[in-house]
Amino acid sequence: MGEEQLLLGLNLVGIIVFSASGAAAAVAKRLDLFGVTVVGVVTALGGGVLRDVAINEAPPVAFTDWRYPVTAGLTAAIIFWLHGRVFRLRKTMLTLDAAGLGLFTVVGTVAALDAGIPQVGACMIGMITAIGGGVVRDLLTAEIPVVLLREIYAVASLAGTIVITVCHHFEVPPLWSSLGAAILVFGLRLISLQRNWSAPTPKGPATA
Amino acid sequence: MGEEQLLLGLNLVGIIVFSASGAAAAVAKRLDLFGVTVVGVVTALGGGVLRDVAINEAPPVAFTDWRYPVTAGLTAAIIFWLHGRVFRLRKTMLTLDAAGLGLFTVVGTVAALDAGIPQVGACMIGMITAIGGGVVRDLLTAEIPVVLLREIYAVASLAGTIVITVCHHFEVPPLWSSLGAAILVFGLRLISLQRNWSAPTPKGPATA
Amino acid sequence: MGEEQLLLGLNLVGIIVFSASGAAAAVAKRLDLFGVTVVGVVTALGGGVLRDVAINEAPPVAFTDWRYPVTAGLTAAIIFWLHGRVFRLRKTMLTLDAAGLGLFTVVGTVAALDAGIPQVGACMIGMITAIGGGVVRDLLTAEIPVVLLREIYAVASLAGTIVITVCHHFEVPPLWSSLGAAILVFGLRLISLQRNWSAPTPKGPATA
Repeated sequence: MGEEQLLLGLNLVGIIVFSASGAAAAVAKRLDLFGVTVVGVVTALGGGVLRDVAINEAPPVAFTDWRYPVTAGLTAAIIFWLHGRVFRLRKTMLTLDAAGLGLFTVVGTVAALDAGIPQVGACMIGMITAIGGGVVRDLLTAEIPVVLLREIYAVASLAGTIVITVCHHFEVPPLWSSLGAAILVFGLRLISLQRNWSAPTPKGPATA
Repeated sequence: MGEEQLLLGLNLVGIIVFSASGAAAAVAKRLDLFGVTVVGVVTALGGGVLRDVAINEAPPVAFTDWRYPVTAGLTAAIIFWLHGRVFRLRKTMLTLDAAGLGLFTVVGTVAALDAGIPQVGACMIGMITAIGGGVVRDLLTAEIPVVLLREIYAVASLAGTIVITVCHHFEVPPLWSSLGAAILVFGLRLISLQRNWSAPTPKGPATA
Repeated sequence: MGEEQLLLGLNLVGIIVFSASGAAAAVAKRLDLFGVTVVGVVTALGGGVLRDVAINEAPPVAFTDWRYPVTAGLTAAIIFWLHGRVFRLRKTMLTLDAAGLGLFTVVGTVAALDAGIPQVGACMIGMITAIGGGVVRDLLTAEIPVVLLREIYAVASLAGTIVITVCHHFEVPPLWSSLGAAILVFGLRLISLQRNWSAPTPKGPATA
């Protein structure tokens, strides 16, 4: 019970940060309220829907649990109204986005392994869960996906999927491997941001 | 029997108008006959395929009923040859497209509810059915999806999905709620077109 | 046994050439090593994943057989390091790509017919298998899909799917019809390349 609640809470945090990043990208493209909401929702839920289709978890949980789309939609709408303020919180946003990346990497890889997907496939599905929403966001806003241009984002996710898959093979308790992998992804991403802190980012404030 | 025939007929009307809108967009991008046909078919069938994948209706009906792709392909090929004339029928095309929007909204939402999808998810799937084809069309022709830029198109569809979902909850006979929702979507879309009638459209004649 | 090994071998050849074509396109867009690898893998496996989703073969084989993604990923990484040399092998690449087109057309159509998809649908799925990866490659690199702009590529695939479907209807042994269809697609594509040999290609060396 408590664990399930925790998982839901972490999932919703991931949805909020990814929806915010999608909405901010859509605002930068001058989409209207509806467009911003759609891009936010798709960014937040897209990776999970791709994962559920891949592991034949049907229908995808994004369509069966109303808390997921409603959370994503409200977040995006709030960003639409507040975006000037959000841009000033850029450092916070990037940190939260890194946390979302770690979380979705873990959730996706564990779901794939639980569905009986072999190891290499589980790593792929974990990465798709974590970066799929951002790729769809960039396609909808007519950009080359940023994850293909900035190496360390997806590589951090890949490292996390490998940790989980190896731990799963050696029957490490899932809670420990999940925690370790999430922290690893989060840390790798933050360190890579730190090192490039002064480097020009080609995509504007909040598309990470 | 009669009702099933009616549904098939309405579905095919929707396919014709959406294929025509996709083909016209492809002609404007100077694609060749094959490209125009593919974009037309994908625009007409894409929303339904996404819906069937989402509700785990496998394989999607677009692949199992030859009348769907053949109708879409023939329509697109005809547009390729006649497109000069079609552009002069723009008002008719937009009206038919609004009818297609209403129809596909209804078909998608009802299919999702019948498949046991909860209410918020059913609304999402209804909208995906109605606007998914157009989004894929815009991705294939390297545009930001027009539905994200022009608010009232998708909002009209959303209103229709809500009507159906609420009526379903209160056990209104499906025929009445379907009819009401389709008319609502059609009307909202037409009124919004009427109000902006003289406004410059940023996308050329037939991409709506 | 021997036949299954042969099929796997042919499949891997197709994966290698399509991954190479995707990686070369990504190199031309100046993506980094990770981006090049992802575009290569998606180009090689994308069509098959779309096919498996369409025929409800779940989870898609690309996620369950590690040889597929590993082969695709290694190929793309090699292209990243060697791409100067590969561009000089352009004629070889286009020939291999034509072979991949023929092979994937056959594999996709046969899989769809085996899954009980009717004829028109099986032709569509065969084409999606053959050209789907390339379409996703072009979407990821923000191009209008080249297959929509150069007619004979997809038409060659279509011809192959029709041959297989007709032969299947008349119960021609699958080995013969597969061989015939693959050679037909390969030959049509090569002839079309030969005829346009001196024509300017709008997309740079290795995006075919």
